[in-house]
Amino acid sequence: MSLEPAKARTLLFGVGLGPGDPDYMTIRARDIILRADRLVHFCKRGRRGNARVTADAIIAPDAAREIELAFPVTIEVPVEDEGYSLPIAAFYDESAALLAAEMEAGRTVAVLCDGDPFFYGSFMHLWRRLSPRFPTEVVPGVTGMAGAWTRANAPITWGDDILTVLPGTLPEAELTRRLVDTDAAVIMKLGRNLPKVRRALAAAGLVERAVYVERATMAEQVVTKLSDKGDDEAPYFSMVLVPGEGRRL
Amino acid sequence: MSLEPAKARTLLFGVGLGPGDPDYMTIRARDIILRADRLVHFCKRGRRGNARVTADAIIAPDAAREIELAFPVTIEVPVEDEGYSLPIAAFYDESAALLAAEMEAGRTVAVLCDGDPFFYGSFMHLWRRLSPRFPTEVVPGVTGMAGAWTRANAPITWGDDILTVLPGTLPEAELTRRLVDTDAAVIMKLGRNLPKVRRALAAAGLVERAVYVERATMAEQVVTKLSDKGDDEAPYFSMVLVPGEGRRL
Ligand SMILES: C[S@@+](CC[C@H](N)C(=O)[O-])C[C@H]1O[C@@H](n2cnc3c(N)ncnc32)[C@H](O)[C@@H]1O
Ligand SMILES: C[S@@+](CC[C@H](N)C(=O)[O-])C[C@H]1O[C@@H](n2cnc3c(N)ncnc32)[C@H](O)[C@@H]1O
Repeated sequence: MSLEPAKARTLLFGVGLGPGDPDYMTIRARDIILRADRLVHFCKRGRRGNARVTADAIIAPDAAREIELAFPVTIEVPVEDEGYSLPIAAFYDESAALLAAEMEAGRTVAVLCDGDPFFYGSFMHLWRRLSPRFPTEVVPGVTGMAGAWTRANAPITWGDDILTVLPGTLPEAELTRRLVDTDAAVIMKLGRNLPKVRRALAAAGLVERAVYVERATMAEQVVTKLSDKGDDEAPYFSMVLVPGEGRRL
Repeated sequence: MSLEPAKARTLLFGVGLGPGDPDYMTIRARDIILRADRLVHFCKRGRRGNARVTADAIIAPDAAREIELAFPVTIEVPVEDEGYSLPIAAFYDESAALLAAEMEAGRTVAVLCDGDPFFYGSFMHLWRRLSPRFPTEVVPGVTGMAGAWTRANAPITWGDDILTVLPGTLPEAELTRRLVDTDAAVIMKLGRNLPKVRRALAAAGLVERAVYVERATMAEQVVTKLSDKGDDEAPYFSMVLVPGEGRRL
């Protein structure tokens, strides 16, 4: 196993680190982050990003190797909002230029990603800008939702179950309609959307089946029936699961 | 990290080994399969199972440790068929009894799973029978679909995209209806269902966006636009991806 395939030397790595527990990192992810010249991660201003915290089990903080990409605006604003999309697009342009300069200088760059890089990942916006220009390897990861259903002790799909993955940002009527019409569901991106998500689940008759999972596989993990959760506080790393009830054999 | 937590010694492990490339195994999966007393895997009669092949990179075949669970009937028969469900339920009962005897004798049992154990996994049928009686740990894995969209170079969901995961076993009209009404889709369990899946994709106007992936991340991987695939042969390990086209930032 080598970071340098025969043809062109791979310079950009998008590395899925899994849901949070460092033991759920893949062998390939570990090998890459041990060896890459630059370790890149997304974060909120003034806070280390979650993927970087996961990597602490493997690599000590090392200022010379690290590049922090701090989002210029909160990531909980609706994407339709131009007040969000213009600064964030500029942020991805600048971030891509920064990483391009590293790679032009011959350095390998590993972008640490929560869960799987190609599943709602911020990395995808860098990948779109950079992979046409630099040889790239993406390493799949255990998704946050797989961490969540594992720790909730809730197999998500049985037999011929259909699974629908819904961003909690969708309008309430659309959430309800889709929840009514699926066997199993995962509702991501809760945050401020939790009251709306609760109403949609209630309208779909699914409140009693819904499980709330916060920071799955991380130190401060919370797993509870949604109906037992007394408040509407939901951090960035939280989701609701509606496990399928397909054929048991 | 220990296989023995403080309270009760864990005896049953459901271990997700990922999509096929052994480098996509998690660190936790590797540690468990190195140490478990018994290595269990599902297979077709007379053939080693795929998860066991993945584990070859870590553990040499070792007859004394291995338990093969060979399905009594082909796994491609529709689940509604009683000619399938009766023998298969008996098979899971017998398999569970076999593993229970091992655990009652104090031996740890690791069931090797393709992808993630709780995502359409055969292991779930053992877990349902055994986890109420024996302390159990499930290790999430990289799913086959994450391996597939990574190797297809196709981020699956952007922005507020909705993802629908559909078993190819569903009726054609239902596949069509659901494909029309989603942003991104994964169609699993192709096999003999590929001609029907093609018709549903055509009816939904999605043939040109569909990507066919066979044995993702394994040695004989195939990735091709579905419209470029000339035949209707699809092995057990194959799926169709319809990548989302949500907001690019
Ligand atoms: C931008 S998406 C990124 C998903 C990530 N690429 C993955 O594969 O899980 C962020 C959302 O993922 C979910 N999420 C990811 N990891 C999680 C975890 N460990 N626990 C709970 N939710 C998680 C939350 O719903 C969060 O709002
Ligand atoms: C019974 S399901 C098990 C899924 C598995 N637990 C997972 O997490 O991917 C079997 C189906 O998964 C899909 N699959 C799993 N791994 C795959 C791979 N490496 N390449 C293509 N398809 C795969 C195929 O559609 C197959 O019919």
